[in-house]
Amino acid sequence: MFPKNTWYVACTPDEIDEKPLGRKICGESIVFYRGAQGQVAALDDFCPHRGAPLSLGTVTEGKLVCGYHGLEMGCDGKTIAMPGQRVRGFPAIRSYPVVERHGFIWVWTGDAALADESKIKHLEWHDNPDWAYGGGLFHIACDYRLMIDNLMDLTHETYVHATSIGQKEIDEVPCKTTVEGDQVITSRFMENITAPPFWKMALRGNNLADDVPVDRWQICRFTPPSNVMIEVGVAHVGKGGYDASPEHKAYSVVVDFITPETETSIHYFWGMARKFNPKDKALTASIREGQGKIFSEDLEMLELQQRNLLAHPTRSLLMLNIDAGGVQSRKILDRLIVAETPREIPAP
Amino acid sequence: MFPKNTWYVACTPDEIDEKPLGRKICGESIVFYRGAQGQVAALDDFCPHRGAPLSLGTVTEGKLVCGYHGLEMGCDGKTIAMPGQRVRGFPAIRSYPVVERHGFIWVWTGDAALADESKIKHLEWHDNPDWAYGGGLFHIACDYRLMIDNLMDLTHETYVHATSIGQKEIDEVPCKTTVEGDQVITSRFMENITAPPFWKMALRGNNLADDVPVDRWQICRFTPPSNVMIEVGVAHVGKGGYDASPEHKAYSVVVDFITPETETSIHYFWGMARKFNPKDKALTASIREGQGKIFSEDLEMLELQQRNLLAHPTRSLLMLNIDAGGVQSRKILDRLIVAETPREIPAP
Amino acid sequence: MFPKNTWYVACTPDEIDEKPLGRKICGESIVFYRGAQGQVAALDDFCPHRGAPLSLGTVTEGKLVCGYHGLEMGCDGKTIAMPGQRVRGFPAIRSYPVVERHGFIWVWTGDAALADESKIKHLEWHDNPDWAYGGGLFHIACDYRLMIDNLMDLTHETYVHATSIGQKEIDEVPCKTTVEGDQVITSRFMENITAPPFWKMALRGNNLADDVPVDRWQICRFTPPSNVMIEVGVAHVGKGGYDASPEHKAYSVVVDFITPETETSIHYFWGMARKFNPKDKALTASIREGQGKIFSEDLEMLELQQRNLLAHPTRSLLMLNIDAGGVQSRKILDRLIVAETPREIPAP
Repeated sequence: MFPKNTWYVACTPDEIDEKPLGRKICGESIVFYRGAQGQVAALDDFCPHRGAPLSLGTVTEGKLVCGYHGLEMGCDGKTIAMPGQRVRGFPAIRSYPVVERHGFIWVWTGDAALADESKIKHLEWHDNPDWAYGGGLFHIACDYRLMIDNLMDLTHETYVHATSIGQKEIDEVPCKTTVEGDQVITSRFMENITAPPFWKMALRGNNLADDVPVDRWQICRFTPPSNVMIEVGVAHVGKGGYDASPEHKAYSVVVDFITPETETSIHYFWGMARKFNPKDKALTASIREGQGKIFSEDLEMLELQQRNLLAHPTRSLLMLNIDAGGVQSRKILDRLIVAETPREIPAP
Repeated sequence: MFPKNTWYVACTPDEIDEKPLGRKICGESIVFYRGAQGQVAALDDFCPHRGAPLSLGTVTEGKLVCGYHGLEMGCDGKTIAMPGQRVRGFPAIRSYPVVERHGFIWVWTGDAALADESKIKHLEWHDNPDWAYGGGLFHIACDYRLMIDNLMDLTHETYVHATSIGQKEIDEVPCKTTVEGDQVITSRFMENITAPPFWKMALRGNNLADDVPVDRWQICRFTPPSNVMIEVGVAHVGKGGYDASPEHKAYSVVVDFITPETETSIHYFWGMARKFNPKDKALTASIREGQGKIFSEDLEMLELQQRNLLAHPTRSLLMLNIDAGGVQSRKILDRLIVAETPREIPAP
Repeated sequence: MFPKNTWYVACTPDEIDEKPLGRKICGESIVFYRGAQGQVAALDDFCPHRGAPLSLGTVTEGKLVCGYHGLEMGCDGKTIAMPGQRVRGFPAIRSYPVVERHGFIWVWTGDAALADESKIKHLEWHDNPDWAYGGGLFHIACDYRLMIDNLMDLTHETYVHATSIGQKEIDEVPCKTTVEGDQVITSRFMENITAPPFWKMALRGNNLADDVPVDRWQICRFTPPSNVMIEVGVAHVGKGGYDASPEHKAYSVVVDFITPETETSIHYFWGMARKFNPKDKALTASIREGQGKIFSEDLEMLELQQRNLLAHPTRSLLMLNIDAGGVQSRKILDRLIVAETPREIPAP
């Protein structure tokens, strides 16, 4: 169960630079590639000739050429040509609205008539020299909502990520969850604590002492269908915490785009945008490496949690205060899913 | 189909020394660990908070701490604490009767009210300096009853284990099967034969000549639910065979605890207890190694036999005299399974 | 859906030289081995005693001895002996008509009463010193008919095998398909072209210049149930093309026996028989290596095409002129399958 009339991150631009990319999104097998002007195209990954995956083909002068018998497909899903054939009567295949923006390729998996580019989230750090960004992609065998739960309740850092970003103060300081329209915000502010290893590294990366007390914040923002942005950081104590001026803090945004592959698997695009020392590429690399390790710790937990839930489909889970972020996010998703489900109109 | 109101070997003590162990037994996912006094606990491997496997957690001061959000679980399946939460209303999870005894951890998978520790088999060699024991654990994709059949008909040694314990005399000497209550006994006595390689090694291990004729015996004892003990050994000819005094023979017991994981897979705890030269650790190691090789020969045969049977569910198998041990054991199992199945009482 | 009253290539003789071979063909698990006079036998791979696969056993004096308990099976599926048992009442297992001929073992998977050895295809290159043959075996997860389609439409060479045998002229020159009884023939003749890399190698292998224009031909012949033979070759221009005398051309036959394992997997026996320089074993090896690479390119395409078709079972595919070979072959198969399906006779 996922909304379909919405934009999902499909891939990063580099994934389609060399050749077409086949990827299943929301249960649909789609081929992504670049057309004649370099614009992205997204089509059903199914050649109308004999059903071969078009993603095994090549792109020649912006045409997607099937790797089996050379059918040339256009970005609109209509066959352009095929050696020795008249193609006018060939059935078209489905094309998906697709947009390249802010460092991602976005695909609209639902009714194309409703696709609205203005609804694509603005990512302020892209092409802004004050920011640096690094990220990666994991495939995880779990319902996309388990990852939303995970990211909207960071108490798990204390346990799952004990050696990097976890610390007991996360458990001790209550979080606060609010809903603003379709957005859910869960925040936690910890004062006068010791920075955990990952944040010590980040402080050093901003040329700040790492052995003095800090204030730490976590502000998780869920936006449907499955984006979670988390403002995170630490500031030297007494400098204003979250509001400290840039030279006294290490401020970042954890970026999570969770794209359902099937009902029980996801493409997990993770990354971190930071607003300090943006030109330091070695720092970008070490943050990326640290974050990759952290998210791979979530991977095992979520896959085994998923397996447990599939084995016990009728058991109900607890919904505690710390789960409020996930619970509220799921309510919004449920509402969106119902809204796009065709309803029977009862006879008068 | 397996009895559930019974004790199964779940694991060996060393498997839970360092961290919790998750293992599926009779279709139930169970976490095993040691509580505050070192006593074993066995719980549903499902955190009541969000369904994470508790076996991914840690044990702190005897409490099982969920590795996801830190819920602290007690040995009785009741939540003790969770950071920032009142846990009194948390639903309890199932706890299983579990006992550490004779070098194994035993779990009762059925109705806890019926669990009776006195029914756990006494293993005389444990903590007895006259004996030595070595063993191992295999996972095998077969119905547990196929392994019982295998162990209750040792004619297969001639073929499956031709290079170690097999010899043509096993086929030539008839076996005798008797039933005593819930126990099935199949025995075979071979006189004045040459010892096969494994038993030559054992004779040398007891400082006995390995190039003289021997008497050899095999006495297989099935006890429900799925334990097979096999008295095995060889004695120099003319010394009394099975009843020879210890200095003239190599006497051992093959120990097999077969714990169903699912309907078509098992945890197979195998080992050998010997009553000669017990302090010789190198001998224990070489017996263990030899036995491990022997049982891995069974593994392939049983997995492919299982696959054949699943592909042809309606074919009936032969029940020859050599199969009597397995056939009688299955009758006892069928009776036990029926006895614990709730019956509808017909209306008068 | 495959015809069963027909001969399929089961294996090559070397596969049963050392020990029995278990192989699933048309959904049936069969064990192949050599009997007392070296003749091939094919039996249900299921011991009537306890269902063990007989293919795990050994062959002793032409008897197939079950590797579990030593049952001795005869080539007719009747038990010959078993240690300590009277076997007269043992149920027979199914034996399959099987023949060794022309370098292959052929099995008849349907009604044994209809098996007719004279229907086994004659392979003229076997035991003929004017020819050399080399080949291999691939397991591919696709419907056998997808491989027939593949081989009866060689336009795919331009795309799938671009670096070895593909060239644009294959696409440009139309093919012609005819049906002669149960045989389908698709042919294409290309004149005055440059030989692609594989054929340059073959020309050199016949001590011919590889840098002069050639005529090239492809004559694909489908014979049910699933054999495709393709006459292929190149001749120096002006020497008569397909009809050129042997010293001016490189002439071969691509040999494809496609044996269904299940509805969606095949054992693919591929090879090439050539009628030039037959004693050059190094040439045989390099042709075999080149062909192995080429067919492994088909493998990925066909497996992913199969996956696409399974995901979209209701989509209809196009049937273009280039597909005529496959389409006509499937019509013959459909007719044969219907012919061997028992029909209800309507009441008068």
